[in-house]
Amino acid sequence: MKAIVFNNELKLDTNYPKPVPQAGEALIKVTLAGICNTDYEITKGYMGYVGVLGHEFVGIVEDVNGTDKSLIGKRVVAEISWGCDEPDCEWCAVKNYRHCPNRHTIGIWKKDGCMAEYITVPTNILFEVPDNVTDEQAVFVEPLAAACEITEQLHIEPTSKVVVLGDGKLGLTTALTLKALNLDVLLIGKHQNKLDIAKAQGVKTQLLNDFKIEKKYDVVVEATGSASGFETSMALTKPRGVLVLKSTVATGKELNLAPIVIDEITVLGSRCGQFAPALRLLENHRIDFTPFITKVYPIDDAIEAFEANKSKESLKILIRI
Amino acid sequence: MKAIVFNNELKLDTNYPKPVPQAGEALIKVTLAGICNTDYEITKGYMGYVGVLGHEFVGIVEDVNGTDKSLIGKRVVAEISWGCDEPDCEWCAVKNYRHCPNRHTIGIWKKDGCMAEYITVPTNILFEVPDNVTDEQAVFVEPLAAACEITEQLHIEPTSKVVVLGDGKLGLTTALTLKALNLDVLLIGKHQNKLDIAKAQGVKTQLLNDFKIEKKYDVVVEATGSASGFETSMALTKPRGVLVLKSTVATGKELNLAPIVIDEITVLGSRCGQFAPALRLLENHRIDFTPFITKVYPIDDAIEAFEANKSKESLKILIRI
Repeated sequence: MKAIVFNNELKLDTNYPKPVPQAGEALIKVTLAGICNTDYEITKGYMGYVGVLGHEFVGIVEDVNGTDKSLIGKRVVAEISWGCDEPDCEWCAVKNYRHCPNRHTIGIWKKDGCMAEYITVPTNILFEVPDNVTDEQAVFVEPLAAACEITEQLHIEPTSKVVVLGDGKLGLTTALTLKALNLDVLLIGKHQNKLDIAKAQGVKTQLLNDFKIEKKYDVVVEATGSASGFETSMALTKPRGVLVLKSTVATGKELNLAPIVIDEITVLGSRCGQFAPALRLLENHRIDFTPFITKVYPIDDAIEAFEANKSKESLKILIRI
Repeated sequence: MKAIVFNNELKLDTNYPKPVPQAGEALIKVTLAGICNTDYEITKGYMGYVGVLGHEFVGIVEDVNGTDKSLIGKRVVAEISWGCDEPDCEWCAVKNYRHCPNRHTIGIWKKDGCMAEYITVPTNILFEVPDNVTDEQAVFVEPLAAACEITEQLHIEPTSKVVVLGDGKLGLTTALTLKALNLDVLLIGKHQNKLDIAKAQGVKTQLLNDFKIEKKYDVVVEATGSASGFETSMALTKPRGVLVLKSTVATGKELNLAPIVIDEITVLGSRCGQFAPALRLLENHRIDFTPFITKVYPIDDAIEAFEANKSKESLKILIRI
């Protein structure tokens, strides 16, 4: 089968072995996949991963190795990690698979990814896509779940002043999600054209240059991925407020963490999320991801798609399989 | 009066003007004061402070400018900050004076400190010292309150695994406090003689060199003040756990904050605390600070006392006034 494989270099393999579902697994024909920045990081060596790339996808179940044959023919998405499900695993006990020390993560850790004609995943991490959600919306469920994760970890009060810093995919998705949850959110970024995507869906936005840095926000979401963004986030968080660290801040800069202690700030690391709340947002059309899609490439042009993803002008690059 | 004054250099001024209590203030004859590392930092330029040093003290109220004359003759301690008490100040409304933007802080910010024969402070930040608490114990109420602050900010469950990193005054006080609150706490440090102070009062201790660094603690208190201590703390915090940042980590080192996101750690900045719970611990003799006291100097030898405080062998240096 065709597969986008990373092994020291990125290539389209047209003869990659089609996976065989193990007990409890479904075989899924992938229809649409998204390129995430994590995929790009992997091509630079992140996690030392070798294999089929990709963890954002929509597909159709073709077969199930197990009893749950009713899944066959269903259009599905899959959470990206699954755990050991051993009785004594505290993480699997609460289905928080991404912290299980023996987890597998699609396209990132010990498991081939979704940028291929077929993928196999355990049936217990599959979610059926509601009929009224297109593939082009459903393929965003994983980053949307990551945005929803913030409210799983933190009770944001309806009166809280919230600011999201960064107008990349992560910042836009987070701001739109918090807006969809009826929170008072302001999105700050450097690119008017990107801010406008959120603005068109009702989010208050402001260019960083026009924005007054004041220590007055109850919740600040850092979604720039830069050390300077982290420092600005500290300068925006009011005493006893919460700085949600949503992006892994680039290293290579000395950071002064004293403001965290002096202002008694909480820095909350936040990563991936569960799919159910994200699917509800999609089903209720609370966010429209159409303007995120820069271009859809056929799998045959996957290398070109990864090149396009490097451009700062690109938001989401999709691959049709 | 005699006063230990910092103004570019540290000196004992024998002719410093005796303060006059303003409306709502008490005049206090100071009997015992403690040197805090913040005082030492001030002598290196911290906060650009000029004036009488010191914020840890016990004294006797000699006069009150106001109606509450019943305080006269009472042995007291004082919280270190007070706020504007304006009706629209959200911090003063909840008596969290240390975050009031218009606060005064004894010996640190816009207010002369306690290393003098007399100090004046607003009566509403005074606490009477219980009769069964000696001056030598009561003088520790401020750092003890800072340790208690952790449980004001964070619900530590009785089943949580807690580790405190650092066996200086801050680490020892924190470990003893959490132990006094019946928590399962382990203190890690580099100095057996310092660890033994906590051990003698029932705290489990271990030398850092003998300690296995594992990501398995629910709550990790960083009390070393070093960047490497912060990194070790991240490596000890289990996924979704809490790293309490109790010391302002020295800068000058690049820090990789990615583990905070990957493991969804909460970093909780924690600073000073309220006196009431600390005074209860002292009144009930739950912690004995006697072994913390390296030496008591008379105020005439204050310069020597500050020199002694620089030694790594020193824990708490007190000044009798």
